[in-house]
Amino acid sequence: MSPTPQWVKDLKPSAPQGAELIKVEREKSKISVEKLSNFLFTKDVLERQAKILKILEAEKVFDKSQNYFDGRVDKFKTALARAKRLRQLQVKHNWNRDDYMMANDLISEPGPYGLHASMYLTTLEGQGTPEQHKLFLEPAQNYKAIGCYAQTELGHGSNVRGLETTATWNPEDKTFILHSPHLTASKWWIGSLGRTANHAVVMAQLIIAGKPYGPHPFVCQIRDMKTHEPLEGVHVGDIGPKFGYNTMDNGFLLLNHVKVPHINMLAKFSRVDPETNKYVKPSSPSLIYGTLTWVRSTIVLQSGGVLARGVTIATRYAAVRRQFQDRDAPSGSDGENQVLNYTMVQFRLLPLLAATFALHFTGKAMMALYQENQKQMQASANTADTNRGAGPEETHSGSDLLADLHATSCGLKALGSTTAAEGLEVCRRACGGHGYSSFGGIGAWYADYLPTTTWEGDNYMLTQQVARYLLKSARAVLKGNAPNNDTTRIFTTFLQKQDMGAAHDVLGSDSDLVAAFAWRTSFLTFEALKHRDVEKNSWNSLLVDFWRLSTAHSQYLVVKNFYEALQSESLRYELDPATIDVLHKLFRLYALITLEKEASEFYSSSAVTVRQIQLARTKAVMKLLEEIRPHALSLVDAWQFPDWQLDSSLGRKDGKVYEDMFYRASELNPLNGLTVDPYPDSDVLIKKDETSKFKSKL
Amino acid sequence: MSPTPQWVKDLKPSAPQGAELIKVEREKSKISVEKLSNFLFTKDVLERQAKILKILEAEKVFDKSQNYFDGRVDKFKTALARAKRLRQLQVKHNWNRDDYMMANDLISEPGPYGLHASMYLTTLEGQGTPEQHKLFLEPAQNYKAIGCYAQTELGHGSNVRGLETTATWNPEDKTFILHSPHLTASKWWIGSLGRTANHAVVMAQLIIAGKPYGPHPFVCQIRDMKTHEPLEGVHVGDIGPKFGYNTMDNGFLLLNHVKVPHINMLAKFSRVDPETNKYVKPSSPSLIYGTLTWVRSTIVLQSGGVLARGVTIATRYAAVRRQFQDRDAPSGSDGENQVLNYTMVQFRLLPLLAATFALHFTGKAMMALYQENQKQMQASANTADTNRGAGPEETHSGSDLLADLHATSCGLKALGSTTAAEGLEVCRRACGGHGYSSFGGIGAWYADYLPTTTWEGDNYMLTQQVARYLLKSARAVLKGNAPNNDTTRIFTTFLQKQDMGAAHDVLGSDSDLVAAFAWRTSFLTFEALKHRDVEKNSWNSLLVDFWRLSTAHSQYLVVKNFYEALQSESLRYELDPATIDVLHKLFRLYALITLEKEASEFYSSSAVTVRQIQLARTKAVMKLLEEIRPHALSLVDAWQFPDWQLDSSLGRKDGKVYEDMFYRASELNPLNGLTVDPYPDSDVLIKKDETSKFKSKL
Repeated sequence: MSPTPQWVKDLKPSAPQGAELIKVEREKSKISVEKLSNFLFTKDVLERQAKILKILEAEKVFDKSQNYFDGRVDKFKTALARAKRLRQLQVKHNWNRDDYMMANDLISEPGPYGLHASMYLTTLEGQGTPEQHKLFLEPAQNYKAIGCYAQTELGHGSNVRGLETTATWNPEDKTFILHSPHLTASKWWIGSLGRTANHAVVMAQLIIAGKPYGPHPFVCQIRDMKTHEPLEGVHVGDIGPKFGYNTMDNGFLLLNHVKVPHINMLAKFSRVDPETNKYVKPSSPSLIYGTLTWVRSTIVLQSGGVLARGVTIATRYAAVRRQFQDRDAPSGSDGENQVLNYTMVQFRLLPLLAATFALHFTGKAMMALYQENQKQMQASANTADTNRGAGPEETHSGSDLLADLHATSCGLKALGSTTAAEGLEVCRRACGGHGYSSFGGIGAWYADYLPTTTWEGDNYMLTQQVARYLLKSARAVLKGNAPNNDTTRIFTTFLQKQDMGAAHDVLGSDSDLVAAFAWRTSFLTFEALKHRDVEKNSWNSLLVDFWRLSTAHSQYLVVKNFYEALQSESLRYELDPATIDVLHKLFRLYALITLEKEASEFYSSSAVTVRQIQLARTKAVMKLLEEIRPHALSLVDAWQFPDWQLDSSLGRKDGKVYEDMFYRASELNPLNGLTVDPYPDSDVLIKKDETSKFKSKL
Repeated sequence: MSPTPQWVKDLKPSAPQGAELIKVEREKSKISVEKLSNFLFTKDVLERQAKILKILEAEKVFDKSQNYFDGRVDKFKTALARAKRLRQLQVKHNWNRDDYMMANDLISEPGPYGLHASMYLTTLEGQGTPEQHKLFLEPAQNYKAIGCYAQTELGHGSNVRGLETTATWNPEDKTFILHSPHLTASKWWIGSLGRTANHAVVMAQLIIAGKPYGPHPFVCQIRDMKTHEPLEGVHVGDIGPKFGYNTMDNGFLLLNHVKVPHINMLAKFSRVDPETNKYVKPSSPSLIYGTLTWVRSTIVLQSGGVLARGVTIATRYAAVRRQFQDRDAPSGSDGENQVLNYTMVQFRLLPLLAATFALHFTGKAMMALYQENQKQMQASANTADTNRGAGPEETHSGSDLLADLHATSCGLKALGSTTAAEGLEVCRRACGGHGYSSFGGIGAWYADYLPTTTWEGDNYMLTQQVARYLLKSARAVLKGNAPNNDTTRIFTTFLQKQDMGAAHDVLGSDSDLVAAFAWRTSFLTFEALKHRDVEKNSWNSLLVDFWRLSTAHSQYLVVKNFYEALQSESLRYELDPATIDVLHKLFRLYALITLEKEASEFYSSSAVTVRQIQLARTKAVMKLLEEIRPHALSLVDAWQFPDWQLDSSLGRKDGKVYEDMFYRASELNPLNGLTVDPYPDSDVLIKKDETSKFKSKL
């Protein structure tokens, strides 16, 4: 690769420059970006971000310039070096969990300690006894032991009860024998297991005296603490490359009659009594249940920000990129039109911009609900502790809230992660050809995010949980023994008004807009109830209806949460009226676009009329796009992604899109170190290989 | 990496085995797979496939086992070695173009000769004079010169008129000076340019005596024929990694006042007279127009097969994969349920299966239309040739057919490639977690296909072409001077019946179903016409309406083409009634699912009633899914993808899914050659590196 000649260095993009365009664009809006950012994230969080960003940027190992070029092996090596350094920095700067998570967010790639730092530590903490904490948790917290959480198997994903790995209690020497009876029993997809971990929490079917007791967690050492070679009876490795997530060593694990001592079964909730050889039942299963809910709530909370990265990149690029003249422009007018001016582009991007805020406020509400439930559960668990002999005790309201929380977290996890994943791809395509370049910055982010639609409950599977809850609530309302919560209230309202009809003024009133979503959910619930309870249709035949119902309900929750966030005291206190007005328009855009997309459910439930939907489609939505458009750039700026985090030529805050694309291709791209022999009849493939010059040193 | 122990080698998947499940599944259907395959592709094509597959499988360089592991540089090296070998095989076996394309399809990855073999040769052939054929085409056909087609620029994608590269005519020495005045003028995305080509057809703005004449093609040598180093004034390289397509060296190119002789401007259609220094206009611009239409028609033709790969993989895996018990299964019934039995899975996969056939038949019809047009154009061009002095001459009907062909190819390209791309992702997710593994085989295929939604006309941009044509046709119908074709006929029908209403029996009659789609297109066309011509709305404000209109029209065309294919003589001659019956159900499923998805346009146009849509949704579609399900596996088998082509553990014809996943992870995965030091406070990253043992030798 010859050095870049001077005449190339002298070239600039043709006028107007991206930097000018983006400056003019910013000046179009009077929104206070800083106030809005503080309102969304708090000043503390943004200050933490700035502090940690500075530390990371100074470290050579976190330099991102070769990220998009490396193959699997190099990607993993770099990720491991980064994981080590990150842990060193954590110790050095005495970072708490929030600091560490912030650093991870800024680095924005999964790392080999990922499952150690999350699921391994959490499981030991949550399900271990004090004695087990001493034995397993402490060395893990100090990274003297590196662990992972091994549940999923090659033949068994969602269905935990179907796991094949066994843990057989051996009363003679008081041990468990962990074993993989079939190839399909191989643990699979286990993060940090492939190359990194030397311990695993293995979920296995507990068997005592030939009788199965369901899946339970066992701590199992899998590699030698010094040589890091697999132990006897352990076959372990990385499962191979994936669509994304290739910085992580997802692994497989087969166990051949591996013995672990009695202490290795995590025993906070259930255990085997080594004296009697009897199984002791879990004291409060609902506490375990809570962990999954927390994980799902976190996914909901993050989904807005995940999508906002793509929307930020696509919106900024659409302000810099110009294509074609406006067809109706007066002849003689010069220059191409900013892509963001085209309604077709606005129609694709601005509803997603609205969705980022909708999901953000929904995530915050979801987390508040989770915290509220934790408080109630803790109170309930304390009661149970004092009555241990009598078994678990739960207050009625605690159980109701938990059921509501469980269903809400399932439905919103499915809707939020689907919206974010599919929205990112819309953003990528809205960037035209350059969206396909790795330097665009959306592709890799999207690919890494995609598994979120499958893990912690496949997004289609989860909808059954929501439907089950809604059917149960509807039955209770009909019987008159329902708890008083939002779900039962909207059902009751629906039943009262069903015959009169609804007549929601969705175009004129925000609260009516929310009510129309509630109406549709209620209608679909009672329809599904009729199919199941009256017509006695099979569960399987109703899965598509349940999926629709869950989606409808979750959309209602998002619309309601966005609406409620706009009514909050703190909003009026922290934001100026101009900003509030734009947020209000984003709310209406999100709600009306959703209403229009799902039109047939809205009119067939009589929530709205056909005419209203036509007006929403042709007038209201198009008007909102026009009104929001001048604020688009400021609204994405408010998400406050540092350029270092986005790692995107197209999403640069300063608009220097083309300079950056060119620099990366011309100066950073190792492929340009290859000089080939292009003729098919030549035996020589490569004449000169200077690719190594481009590789960054760790 | 220690060798696989014997106890691992002895393991089998738990019963029932995938091979058994898939065998039972195949026996469920009485469809004649072979007859259906022959009907779809012809026996000749399938025999060619078998012949060429055998040759490729025997060549070490085409071994796919390391494809999913390599980084960018290695991917490209392997692809270059394959491209060379493929060309050698072409010469050795005297392959014609169809043979060569078949080999490419089976290899299924873009290669560094890709744009040489397609656009470079085609452009020279189509736009060069006999003298230029001798000078440029012949060495290119013999691979003595390797070329590419350089049109797109860093700052200019779809808008060809906006290209910045200039070709200034220099009357003194009868040369053109090719120049890139700005950074944004850099050619970008040019396939085969980055590392491979030594020639390019450069599209540049022709300038004569200071006056611009628009973009024209110039042949330009860019690299030394011996050293392969860039020539003086040429800055060229690879543009960097992409979301997919990383076996191809898409390149950039900047030119600094590079001189080429007069002969290098391709002059079949327009040229500069070197004596008078005057521009000579194109003799028949519509012939150039035709090439783009051919490229788009090819995309339509391929879209069915592109999607069918994903549907094949997902359907086969859904027959092998089992998750959960049926909720309504009698207690005591054993084993998990095949995933393909769940209606939620059927609802996602079977409409896509229907779409593969719909697109296949549509593609064939589109190609027939293209051939018909070529015939007419050739006749017309011959007339023009005899009247050259008088300029191009076109018959009225030739021009009408061309306009129709242009609009049809734009609309169907957009719909077909969007359906295929988005459908592949639906298939990938329907495979659950394993769909995310590279071994699933859908991810890489999807990633490589994605640019099809953007190139040859961005799928959103293209919809404007369709709308323009439909508006023009509608105006002609209103004025009474319309040509007699299908579009004007459906408009006329609509205008006649508009006041009476439609009353299409979409649930009872297939022809009514087609008519309902025609009705909706007509309704949307006259609505858009009113917005544009009566209400005088701006073009920009109507882009979303135009996109909807184009989609509606294209869906109509797909439904109509599928319907007409089922009425054909040859179908009844070649297929047995049972197979025809299933194809018929696929037609209804495709049409009804589309109708239901786009419900609000169907009822607001009064094409159908709300009640009909509800029935379609809740009854008709669910019943069709149930009826088609037993034939699903046979229907994907009929697409006849060899395992070697699919390169997918999940899509194996023999159902040995888990064995293959495990083999690839355990035996082929180079990452398992790394033994790491897992502790963060250790300076050692890698204890042992045996990754090179896994690399295949070229």
